[in-house]
Amino acid sequence: MTAPGPPTSAADPLAGLRVVECASFVAGPSGGMALARLGADVLRVDPPGGGGDFHRWPVDDRGTSLYWASLNKGKRSLALDFRAPEGRELLLALATDPGPDAGIYLDNVAGRARLTSDELSTRRADTIHVHVEGVAGGKPGVDYTVNAAVGVPDLTGPADHHGPVNHALPAWDFLCGQYAVTAILAALHRRTRTGAGSSSTIALSDVALAAVGDLGWLAEAHRTGRSRERIGNHTYGSFGVDFPTADGRRVIVVALTGGQWTALCRATGTTEVFAALEPALGADLSDESDRYRFRETIEAILRPWFAARPYDEVADLLDESRVLWGPYRDMAEATRLALADATSVVREIDQPGIGPMAAAAGPIRTAGEARPPQSAPALGADTDAVLSERLGLSPAEIGRLHDAGLVAGPA
Amino acid sequence: MTAPGPPTSAADPLAGLRVVECASFVAGPSGGMALARLGADVLRVDPPGGGGDFHRWPVDDRGTSLYWASLNKGKRSLALDFRAPEGRELLLALATDPGPDAGIYLDNVAGRARLTSDELSTRRADTIHVHVEGVAGGKPGVDYTVNAAVGVPDLTGPADHHGPVNHALPAWDFLCGQYAVTAILAALHRRTRTGAGSSSTIALSDVALAAVGDLGWLAEAHRTGRSRERIGNHTYGSFGVDFPTADGRRVIVVALTGGQWTALCRATGTTEVFAALEPALGADLSDESDRYRFRETIEAILRPWFAARPYDEVADLLDESRVLWGPYRDMAEATRLALADATSVVREIDQPGIGPMAAAAGPIRTAGEARPPQSAPALGADTDAVLSERLGLSPAEIGRLHDAGLVAGPA
Repeated sequence: MTAPGPPTSAADPLAGLRVVECASFVAGPSGGMALARLGADVLRVDPPGGGGDFHRWPVDDRGTSLYWASLNKGKRSLALDFRAPEGRELLLALATDPGPDAGIYLDNVAGRARLTSDELSTRRADTIHVHVEGVAGGKPGVDYTVNAAVGVPDLTGPADHHGPVNHALPAWDFLCGQYAVTAILAALHRRTRTGAGSSSTIALSDVALAAVGDLGWLAEAHRTGRSRERIGNHTYGSFGVDFPTADGRRVIVVALTGGQWTALCRATGTTEVFAALEPALGADLSDESDRYRFRETIEAILRPWFAARPYDEVADLLDESRVLWGPYRDMAEATRLALADATSVVREIDQPGIGPMAAAAGPIRTAGEARPPQSAPALGADTDAVLSERLGLSPAEIGRLHDAGLVAGPA
Repeated sequence: MTAPGPPTSAADPLAGLRVVECASFVAGPSGGMALARLGADVLRVDPPGGGGDFHRWPVDDRGTSLYWASLNKGKRSLALDFRAPEGRELLLALATDPGPDAGIYLDNVAGRARLTSDELSTRRADTIHVHVEGVAGGKPGVDYTVNAAVGVPDLTGPADHHGPVNHALPAWDFLCGQYAVTAILAALHRRTRTGAGSSSTIALSDVALAAVGDLGWLAEAHRTGRSRERIGNHTYGSFGVDFPTADGRRVIVVALTGGQWTALCRATGTTEVFAALEPALGADLSDESDRYRFRETIEAILRPWFAARPYDEVADLLDESRVLWGPYRDMAEATRLALADATSVVREIDQPGIGPMAAAAGPIRTAGEARPPQSAPALGADTDAVLSERLGLSPAEIGRLHDAGLVAGPA
């Protein structure tokens, strides 16, 4: 035990930590929310009226953003015009709050309003600053543009499709948000030991390049000089693909390991078929490379088994043989099942301004507990409290800031 | 400053930290590699001969896995039969190494070989254990099956396509890996303050549910009772889509904000067209909801501008007007450009067993520095050193373990 801290449980290991987040869209805010879910006091700063993502879809019937509420759960909210010089000064003061567990700033602000590392470290030498940007070096970029540039849409989608297929999930944003958390917590570890602050930048474009590099995809393209072919719903380098069932549902089965392949053959009664086929093909299907090379043959042999059985029977037989498989669901079914499962991370919460809302806890379950999801603040809900408690402003000063339009309370 | 630690620079804030990783495939190993990239001493444990991912594609001409080398850069390697009782004891001893910066264990082991939280905390009370699993509760699952179940393939792909479209990128794996890092570093923060250890579990299925929840997609499906339509390459809730250029290339343009929309109209000379169209449509295209509703009309109006110009001209004109856009590239082009860019995170390294290999540094750039990528160890490269240094085994004892096939050195 090296430093006294506030009481914490294993489920809120970051209790007492104060983070200021001045970011919009997915990357930064998802990182801030991950910290809040672990007990940190995360203050999201937005311009009065909200940032560029305040009305983002999905929205409810009245146009209130389900997206914004979902990405800011468990945070506090300050509405501050940080693009005005006086507002920018207030942001700088908050980011460099001298408290022992404060001085942690996460942002994606571009242009003149951006707080520089120099300004931050001048005000508080051990400030931890993590800045998220689009393209490394500062050129604008978002998940969709970065994804296009890194080659993934060229690999995604039906094999006979011409043209790129964008992903629906903003994977790079989420991954970048978690890297921001990593950067903050690693810097905090170092600050605790050495007293030193730090300034880091994470670009979506670097996150994407590093990920395709970490899968060996850059190495493969570098060695062969070309991009690999698009393979539809097949799993690259092994066997995995989707099958329709007799009643119009669809499942995915995957056989990455020898054990998974044996189980799949057993469940579908194809052990002898493949044993007879192997010498004819010159293949050893216990080897994943051969399963990949002959994926279309395997698929063709397995397809009738799935097509002849309704989903429930398929599910039972696959489970019985311990096949690695899963059903396809649409979002409505995924939501219904998650809400009906008392052990899931998803709950219906009462979200101010929206009402009952399906919301997820974080995926880190500690000592068996998933901290239940909290609601998001109204925009500016904590403006006055933050100005008073953290910056020591008087009611008169706070009133003046409101009158000048530099800060705003909840609408 | 609260505790003495080894010398660290801002670029290796985790120097001195010892992590034992007993995990395979993408999630756990990508988390371990993120820690190694920040200076931690990460020991990857595999069975002799390698785990289920040791030969995974992509592979080089001789069948050596570019994937494995890419996901284990900068780690040390121990080959240990941890499924045998004596091997399992050695793994337990390593995971609960009493050093002040040790006792951190990341795994995805299932079945009897899995080290339980009780065993770990009995041997070292403040052990930090993060366990990665497929489906919450322990049912097997991998990225592909979890993705199917969470509804994303139903939203991905061409609007006129029937059936699910799997993602090519194992996004859930990577995101889970970074959550594992978050869990470790948050628990470490708490251990430093309170002396307490912790045990966390992260399921790929929870990671996926939390992410679609955090975008408001579960909330939307819950309120409407149905899944939203598939929209091809369009950006949900705003305007963003791809266009072919005159010379057969393709770009994506995105207008999430009013400023980005104005820039796009300016660049393409369509400001007046849209101004004339708005009253006819009853639309206000400065509002992203209306841009989304009329996305196909906007696309149809913009398409000829792109089709009439070669890529270079399109690029110049879009940049000139500060449009948010990006080129589509295939993996070969993305690799070439990244290697040619001295400021990128990608370098050619000399990978033992493979040779020259394109490899990425981590995306966290600290004080402007990206720590250059390191090579991966040969399987079992550190077996003898680890058994000797960490467990104090004599050369005779180590020899006996080799003879018994319980450990292995590099092939």
